[in-house]
Amino acid sequence: MRLFISREEHLRRLEAVRHELDRRGLVGLVLFSPMQVFYLTGFSFIATERPAALVVSDNRSTLFVPRLEEEHATAHAVVDRVVSYPEYPGDIHPMRRLASLLSDLGVERGPLGADGEGYPGVMGYQGPRLREVLPEISVQVVRDLIEDMMKIKSAEEVALIRESVRWGNLAHTYLQEYTRPGAVESEVGLRASADASAAMIRALGPEYRPLSWLFPGAHAGFRGQVGRQSAIPHAMTTNARIQTGDVLVTGAAASVGGYISELERTMVVGQPSAEQQRFFSLMLGVQETAFEAIRPGRPCAEVDRAVRAYFERYDLMPYWRHHVGHALGTGIHEAPFFDIGDPTEIHPGMVFSVEPGIYVPGLGGFRHSDTVLITEDGSEILTFYPRDLVSLTIG
Amino acid sequence: MRLFISREEHLRRLEAVRHELDRRGLVGLVLFSPMQVFYLTGFSFIATERPAALVVSDNRSTLFVPRLEEEHATAHAVVDRVVSYPEYPGDIHPMRRLASLLSDLGVERGPLGADGEGYPGVMGYQGPRLREVLPEISVQVVRDLIEDMMKIKSAEEVALIRESVRWGNLAHTYLQEYTRPGAVESEVGLRASADASAAMIRALGPEYRPLSWLFPGAHAGFRGQVGRQSAIPHAMTTNARIQTGDVLVTGAAASVGGYISELERTMVVGQPSAEQQRFFSLMLGVQETAFEAIRPGRPCAEVDRAVRAYFERYDLMPYWRHHVGHALGTGIHEAPFFDIGDPTEIHPGMVFSVEPGIYVPGLGGFRHSDTVLITEDGSEILTFYPRDLVSLTIG
Repeated sequence: MRLFISREEHLRRLEAVRHELDRRGLVGLVLFSPMQVFYLTGFSFIATERPAALVVSDNRSTLFVPRLEEEHATAHAVVDRVVSYPEYPGDIHPMRRLASLLSDLGVERGPLGADGEGYPGVMGYQGPRLREVLPEISVQVVRDLIEDMMKIKSAEEVALIRESVRWGNLAHTYLQEYTRPGAVESEVGLRASADASAAMIRALGPEYRPLSWLFPGAHAGFRGQVGRQSAIPHAMTTNARIQTGDVLVTGAAASVGGYISELERTMVVGQPSAEQQRFFSLMLGVQETAFEAIRPGRPCAEVDRAVRAYFERYDLMPYWRHHVGHALGTGIHEAPFFDIGDPTEIHPGMVFSVEPGIYVPGLGGFRHSDTVLITEDGSEILTFYPRDLVSLTIG
Repeated sequence: MRLFISREEHLRRLEAVRHELDRRGLVGLVLFSPMQVFYLTGFSFIATERPAALVVSDNRSTLFVPRLEEEHATAHAVVDRVVSYPEYPGDIHPMRRLASLLSDLGVERGPLGADGEGYPGVMGYQGPRLREVLPEISVQVVRDLIEDMMKIKSAEEVALIRESVRWGNLAHTYLQEYTRPGAVESEVGLRASADASAAMIRALGPEYRPLSWLFPGAHAGFRGQVGRQSAIPHAMTTNARIQTGDVLVTGAAASVGGYISELERTMVVGQPSAEQQRFFSLMLGVQETAFEAIRPGRPCAEVDRAVRAYFERYDLMPYWRHHVGHALGTGIHEAPFFDIGDPTEIHPGMVFSVEPGIYVPGLGGFRHSDTVLITEDGSEILTFYPRDLVSLTIG
């Protein structure tokens, strides 16, 4: 099977962008977001203080990169041309060089679309906005243009996400196997990640590329959600030792050709208490409620509303902390969101996390997260790790 | 020893900000950058689609967070008050809630400083700018205000960076020990990272917190710079097998209380060829040139100029790819930069990477990176891993 997005698909995406630019009356598009550049060109790189930008114009696509990325971009990016500049800040600021390039490309008649006012301020970067270096042309910020395309996953994208699910599942299997009272949380995670990645690399062979700076393969861990700290939805990794009686909230994923998935489980160490059993069971119920509410044609908000109704029915609002889920694919979180404020209509081809959580101070957090694909007549849960308490009890 | 920045230091930083706001005639400051929020409050968190902001006004500091971070922020942030909002996008957009909070805090008479036009577009976030939700007051973007403070490290900060250096060194020691022909690069890195982190957690004890989402402890790896691919300065991790004859470029670091360091080495697998020896030696020479050029009182640009002169003297410009280095601390790269375009004066207390590289297509990349502290009368190289080719030859 293919472990990356094909050249043909990248060219199709580019055509779709050109069509959309025509429709909006824009002469070209400048993308600064590394994720949007990756989406259109397949070029995955480390964003630093050195700006990079993709320029889509009528007749060609041009990737503007710092000198240190020139060979890398030439080898991997599906574009007509790679143009490099020496360095940031350099003798001439890269944004001024980009302005000259844009003039050379003939987009100075405008209006020009861009995914932001300029290169975002990562790693100490500072610089002028596009409007400032191109005062004579009109720039429209059209952040939604690519983000809207990214919402509906193609067959190739879904295949990569399915592959990611498989290896996230293996990483989680090791994580659970290595979890025992007395173990340090981050060590269990590091060992599970190393073993799952080693298996993944051998199984997928030399064609496999994570195309991710974050995860060189598969990954699983607790990120600090151990014992009472599991009641903090976004805790940070500590060196807590796992103890009998702890509630644990896990997370597992794998990078395949730049695509990810999401798998999270609530585990209990030792015989679960009556209270733990009760909240675990309520959590299963609320996730089931979310699964049932997900239907193509409905607004995303409705899924969150159904879940909030469940929280209210069972007097759980004191334990409510966040919305039901988010889209994902190349991004860890992408729009749209299963949130009462998101009216986006659910469409076949969208991929979401479904992860309503119940957080009980002093006891722990209860959250499963599954990756779900929207189909023509409903949804398919792609993640397949066991969800029941018996399977998720340690020791 | 202390493994985190003290409450007292956070309060001193806050006082310095208030002083600077007075000097600039600003009634308050809004910070959206998670790194700047961490710098002022010690609160480290995962930035998502849900905006967070620190508001510094005359008489208090207020942290505005999504509901899921409320307990986390209350436990860890050095601030007067934590205010939470339910969710993003939610029934009322978080930026509108922030506007109400700012009015309540009495900063609506303006002018107000901010580190950006609004919350950056991470993980699918979209929203109005501060100016749009507060049309009646003047907002000045003052990104440099905190970044300037961050440039000079305090004694506490330097102590954390020194501690990071120690464990980055251990991770690199394991990395070199596990490197052998036939090994898969990412597996060597994962194993070295796991073993160094395990040692670090035991040695530093329960007070140790990485305060990083990226690295739960110490970390070492090759990130794709293996064999010919080592000539790509920012390659991405692949599953390459290490072979006799390869040039390898490594990287090692550790997170201590949110601070990092940088250690990179060029290694050769098997007896180095004459060509490998020659470029290795030139690389040592160029790094030495950089070390010698670093003096307090000089502009950062001068270090890059000295290095470029060396490249020209030895006809190395075809192998030049990037500037000499960058500041670091809480950020992987921070301003200022050792770059011909950066006139910032080098000051005691600044901490930089020094990493000029020579990249020879078809042969490999040659780059050491060391972390250097600027002192009153020169500089101190904090990293202490061997630099010579004999020590860095595998097998």
